[in-house]
Amino acid sequence: MDLGKLIREEVLTQQAYPAEGMKCRIKLDANESPYGLPALLQERLFARMQDTALNRYPEPGAPALRKRYGAICGVDESRIMTGNGSDELIQILCAAMARPGVRILVPTPTFVMYRIIGSNCGLGVTEVRLDAAFDLDPAAMLEKIAAESPALIFLSYPNSPTGNCFSEDRIRAILEASAGVVVVDEAYFNFSEKTLLPLLKQYQNLVILRTLSKVGYAALRIGFLIGAPELVQELNKVRLPYNMNTLSQLAAGFFMDEQQAFSELIDRIIEERKNLYAALQKMDGIHPCPSVANFIFFSCNQDAIHIYDQLLRKGILVKPFIFPWSSRQFIRVTVGSCEENEAFIEELKRIIAK
Amino acid sequence: MDLGKLIREEVLTQQAYPAEGMKCRIKLDANESPYGLPALLQERLFARMQDTALNRYPEPGAPALRKRYGAICGVDESRIMTGNGSDELIQILCAAMARPGVRILVPTPTFVMYRIIGSNCGLGVTEVRLDAAFDLDPAAMLEKIAAESPALIFLSYPNSPTGNCFSEDRIRAILEASAGVVVVDEAYFNFSEKTLLPLLKQYQNLVILRTLSKVGYAALRIGFLIGAPELVQELNKVRLPYNMNTLSQLAAGFFMDEQQAFSELIDRIIEERKNLYAALQKMDGIHPCPSVANFIFFSCNQDAIHIYDQLLRKGILVKPFIFPWSSRQFIRVTVGSCEENEAFIEELKRIIAK
Repeated sequence: MDLGKLIREEVLTQQAYPAEGMKCRIKLDANESPYGLPALLQERLFARMQDTALNRYPEPGAPALRKRYGAICGVDESRIMTGNGSDELIQILCAAMARPGVRILVPTPTFVMYRIIGSNCGLGVTEVRLDAAFDLDPAAMLEKIAAESPALIFLSYPNSPTGNCFSEDRIRAILEASAGVVVVDEAYFNFSEKTLLPLLKQYQNLVILRTLSKVGYAALRIGFLIGAPELVQELNKVRLPYNMNTLSQLAAGFFMDEQQAFSELIDRIIEERKNLYAALQKMDGIHPCPSVANFIFFSCNQDAIHIYDQLLRKGILVKPFIFPWSSRQFIRVTVGSCEENEAFIEELKRIIAK
Repeated sequence: MDLGKLIREEVLTQQAYPAEGMKCRIKLDANESPYGLPALLQERLFARMQDTALNRYPEPGAPALRKRYGAICGVDESRIMTGNGSDELIQILCAAMARPGVRILVPTPTFVMYRIIGSNCGLGVTEVRLDAAFDLDPAAMLEKIAAESPALIFLSYPNSPTGNCFSEDRIRAILEASAGVVVVDEAYFNFSEKTLLPLLKQYQNLVILRTLSKVGYAALRIGFLIGAPELVQELNKVRLPYNMNTLSQLAAGFFMDEQQAFSELIDRIIEERKNLYAALQKMDGIHPCPSVANFIFFSCNQDAIHIYDQLLRKGILVKPFIFPWSSRQFIRVTVGSCEENEAFIEELKRIIAK
């Protein structure tokens, strides 16, 4: 068996994911919610799950869930597809459009899975640098759209890792210029309270992604795609019929039943974000970017990998970013609980004071 | 947005899956186990789940589960990958090998998802008819292997829908002739108690698939792939990092803790298979094929769709098969509980007596 002949070039040349998660005391690297479900809610959720007939396949296509989520979003269920996390929805989009020679377009820096999944599906990936304010560079984006006609453009809104929302008028210009699909990934929309959902009526090529991973359900892998019914119909052919397991379907329904309780947890994160931002802003050599997400991206005058290492020694996990095009180094820290944020700030102070 | 230009040809020309599951009283169409978990086990499983931190992402790559499953199978964990059902593992195999112009080879009739997923990944699909005994046609298979060098060959063992295991010597001949990967899908191995796992040492190009969907866990989407470590390493790059949710990882561990209890349920299904087979064999115009799976494939002198429709009117769901190359029509019926099988047999008798 000659793997060099069997496996696609794009896969062979790609680095493997690290096989295991990092052990740490305070996990501020993956933009998870710091809050588990309140005990009473957790109990009620699992009490509801307990009646599940585990021997039966999940409802293919999660029709009840789609109907319910559609009602919440004010769109017809025919516009909605559910995924095993948004990761799978990104994969379905890429797989459905991976015609030979076709490319996708992403700004950079942004969520790396667009590039990885696109490439794994055999799509060429074009990256266009964000401007100095981490907003879209409209001229550069439009130039690539004209030159390459990308089948897919991925815009993270708010953008990970930078934490800002791109200007709506620039996104509109991209929607208007593109013959391909423009995917606006609203993974963090609960924290920004900004959505481009109302633009769906106007732009047939707009797709919105949502997830419950950032609001307390990362374990369950629940993603939603909202787009034109004709597009969703095609994407559904690529979706594996039983992609979302029964317990996740049930838990997603529970989330909708208990929106108030989840909203309170989200509000606490938004509150903590303010405190964390203020604390970072006070520190010498640390420059936090304003954030409407559940994380803060900041530059540091010191070596980011050194800070990362020193934090990890104390059991605190964050995510460092080094870009070949920037002399500034960055760290992205998830907004944790009050205690977690304080522990992080205290350690960071010690490290940069040295 | 011109979907005809954006979506791949293979997807556009494919039929959509039916959006919703069929409502029925007795579900004998999807080879599920008829038995839910015994109440005490179900309680213990959900009690264990209740401690899950739902706000945290699953362990990427499910290392604990892989280690444990490796120990059970007598192989190193580096040979194992977990999937969101075997469907996803089939998709990962196809996606990793979808070089332009590459084909896969499957016998027919077999599990339709090989063809659907392969085609959705952009792979050409060659089908070779099984022989009159529903065994592999070695000459025809070897001819296609020589002519087309398929990257992947999928062999369902036992085969769905026919219920038999292909001859091991014919599978060996295919393994020896193929420069590509030969996937032996042992989804039903708990009912056949036959496995080609021992051949892994001898054939580097052998991949075994397993699932917990047929033994009581269809709701949870748990699949395992076992193959050469070098191949698994490449496939892992295509696997989405958080593909198996936390509750399913936990439930899979519980399955391994409680193997004895699950084995008893499997034994009951094997026992019921004997009774169902004997009952079918006694019926005029019905010719059941010997089965080592948890379903029975039988031909009928009457219109299979008519029988299917009449059964469905009584709330009994089975799966009819009509092949362009055969004048015989077939039905696949899952082995249900004693009561379900009796209700099915009774109705079938009534229908064919008319």
